[in-house]
Amino acid sequence: MKKKYVPKSEIENRIIRLQKILPQENIEAALIIYKVDYFYFSGTSQNSVLFVPAEEKPLLMVIRDMARAIEESPLAQVVPLESVLGIPELIKEFYGIIPQRIGMELDVLPVRDYFRFQKMFPKTEIVDTAKIIKRLRMIKSPYEITQMKRAGEIGKMVYEEGCSILREGMSEIEFGGWLELAAKKHEHEGLIRVRSLNYEAYTWHVLSGPSGSIVSQADSPMGGAGLSPAFPVGAGTRKIQAHEPILVDFGICYNGYIVDQTRIYSIGELPEKFMKAYAASRKIESLILKETLPGKNTREIYEKTLRFAAELGYKDNYLGIPGKKSSFVAHGIGLEINEIPFMAAGQNFSLEENTAIAIEPKMVFPGEGAVGIENTILITSQGVEKLTACSEKILQV
Amino acid sequence: MKKKYVPKSEIENRIIRLQKILPQENIEAALIIYKVDYFYFSGTSQNSVLFVPAEEKPLLMVIRDMARAIEESPLAQVVPLESVLGIPELIKEFYGIIPQRIGMELDVLPVRDYFRFQKMFPKTEIVDTAKIIKRLRMIKSPYEITQMKRAGEIGKMVYEEGCSILREGMSEIEFGGWLELAAKKHEHEGLIRVRSLNYEAYTWHVLSGPSGSIVSQADSPMGGAGLSPAFPVGAGTRKIQAHEPILVDFGICYNGYIVDQTRIYSIGELPEKFMKAYAASRKIESLILKETLPGKNTREIYEKTLRFAAELGYKDNYLGIPGKKSSFVAHGIGLEINEIPFMAAGQNFSLEENTAIAIEPKMVFPGEGAVGIENTILITSQGVEKLTACSEKILQV
Repeated sequence: MKKKYVPKSEIENRIIRLQKILPQENIEAALIIYKVDYFYFSGTSQNSVLFVPAEEKPLLMVIRDMARAIEESPLAQVVPLESVLGIPELIKEFYGIIPQRIGMELDVLPVRDYFRFQKMFPKTEIVDTAKIIKRLRMIKSPYEITQMKRAGEIGKMVYEEGCSILREGMSEIEFGGWLELAAKKHEHEGLIRVRSLNYEAYTWHVLSGPSGSIVSQADSPMGGAGLSPAFPVGAGTRKIQAHEPILVDFGICYNGYIVDQTRIYSIGELPEKFMKAYAASRKIESLILKETLPGKNTREIYEKTLRFAAELGYKDNYLGIPGKKSSFVAHGIGLEINEIPFMAAGQNFSLEENTAIAIEPKMVFPGEGAVGIENTILITSQGVEKLTACSEKILQV
Repeated sequence: MKKKYVPKSEIENRIIRLQKILPQENIEAALIIYKVDYFYFSGTSQNSVLFVPAEEKPLLMVIRDMARAIEESPLAQVVPLESVLGIPELIKEFYGIIPQRIGMELDVLPVRDYFRFQKMFPKTEIVDTAKIIKRLRMIKSPYEITQMKRAGEIGKMVYEEGCSILREGMSEIEFGGWLELAAKKHEHEGLIRVRSLNYEAYTWHVLSGPSGSIVSQADSPMGGAGLSPAFPVGAGTRKIQAHEPILVDFGICYNGYIVDQTRIYSIGELPEKFMKAYAASRKIESLILKETLPGKNTREIYEKTLRFAAELGYKDNYLGIPGKKSSFVAHGIGLEINEIPFMAAGQNFSLEENTAIAIEPKMVFPGEGAVGIENTILITSQGVEKLTACSEKILQV
């Protein structure tokens, strides 16, 4: 296998950026326990805990597998750890002291583990570093953008292959399975990571006709039927028919990095109503892309799209049907699908350069279906660059 | 779609069992916030919080989607909830008082949310109900067993279809993608749930030849290469060859319920070394199945298998290679893949009737490959019943 290791310079820069912020927040060290975060700062997702002091070299403590962690991580200090209980001793051994104020990711750390850490560090205050880490991860490096562009290219191939797979009478879940197979052949990793206790992302988000107006647990314009109340999101068993919109919202993950995109398939021609609504979605996307510049406020862009959708005649369709609308039109994306910033109600982010976001203006018609477009884009000083390169026409077969 | 709703009697029995235990533990009410748990007790996994007092009717508070929650859940009290902040008020409205001691799942609840709940319930002690809930979920009802048997039947079809898909030169991940597609056609839900912050289960666990001796982050005899350091488990890009063991550990999830199983494929004949090791794995499985009776101690069974494997000449192969062995041979299974009990080092569970476990004695040869068998079984008063019905011969194509 071609080794997809994270470059040394990349890890060094990430550690430097974290170490710069820690003293500003009066935190002596970060103790990083969440896999996606320690993968980001170490280059390995082997079972580990990463200690990053504000000034000295970080220490990666590895439970399993040590050999792979050493091979994958460019960090200089990688040591074995038999159990988390051994952490304080290793810190003392490497740094001479136990910090009085350490940061952990309290947005994901389970309470039971927190109590255990409190016992292990009885004289240490444990504060939250989730916000700091999320802010650092929001800004993408050229290396990260390269991974996301590759994910975008895989997405392009998958949507194109979908045109030769889709046929009338195929179930949504079967079409989703075929797309997933096509993606895996190109090294799509299959899972889409989410920073949340209860929210799961399904790659096989194939919603045909009326399925497009079924909402579910997530704050999204449409959820789909899913396969059962246990998994009530995404493709269901409905047979896909001709002349109805087939909305395919398909996340691709390459080397850890995700892009999210949505395109519309149809078998035969789509009724004019949906064609027009799709064109309106694209107009709203154009408005967003024009507004998406460093310094702009995300809530204001979101609100502008609401007004524009109403002007276009889609007040009752845009981002869902009344009473069941989603409250956002774009989300940050990278190693996880729900990164900051959000273009959403009440979310006042100021956009920054080198942030990646997925923008998804969509229209829902109750009982009939949904259409819309989604692209993952990079914010640059000049405007936006699309990371999802697939044709934006209706994919009619 | 055929509605796969959880029957009313099922939910009633689960609530009764929980309400019986709560007073024994001196807990006035359980506030269930983890999706898999509130699905178990309510029948819906729409975004909700479930309040179960020790004596009165439970209250399902639904954030989204209310209409689906009402349709899916047989509970009598299902009410809308705008934000988690509204929970105390709803409890007061329905029950007149706020309990002084409530239980939450502290093994999964993030610290930040815990702090929020502490503020919302300033005079209430929050204790851990994870153990209670896990113990209740360990015992499977006839309805649950029916779902798991269906998952087992899907698994059988998938492994059989695999025989006509597998060919030399196909990559592990491609074969995994084909198996996943075959499973989805039969309504496999695609995700395998795990109760853990960092551990993720991959369905496409296809390890060919030397990949079978690559370990990874999990406590498992083999992990596989995976596709990158970000996803370092399961199928990689290695091309499958003839005359090597192709270990396929494939979890199937139907209507929320999982079965786990492992079979070995080969293209052409397998060298005798692997045939013998596979036969030894099956002998160890037979020993375990004979020992798996209500009242038996799980650690003792695990230790007995270590001795038996050594007797058979596989001390350095059984459950992994020396220094990298896994510490368990069986795990509980149901809505999640890491349920109790475990047959493992230091784990003293006393086996109970109607518990489902996945038993997986496996052999690893460094640099060469891995073989082994895994079945999901139900413990009955008479012994065990296999829920995974697939042929146990080497699947030679």
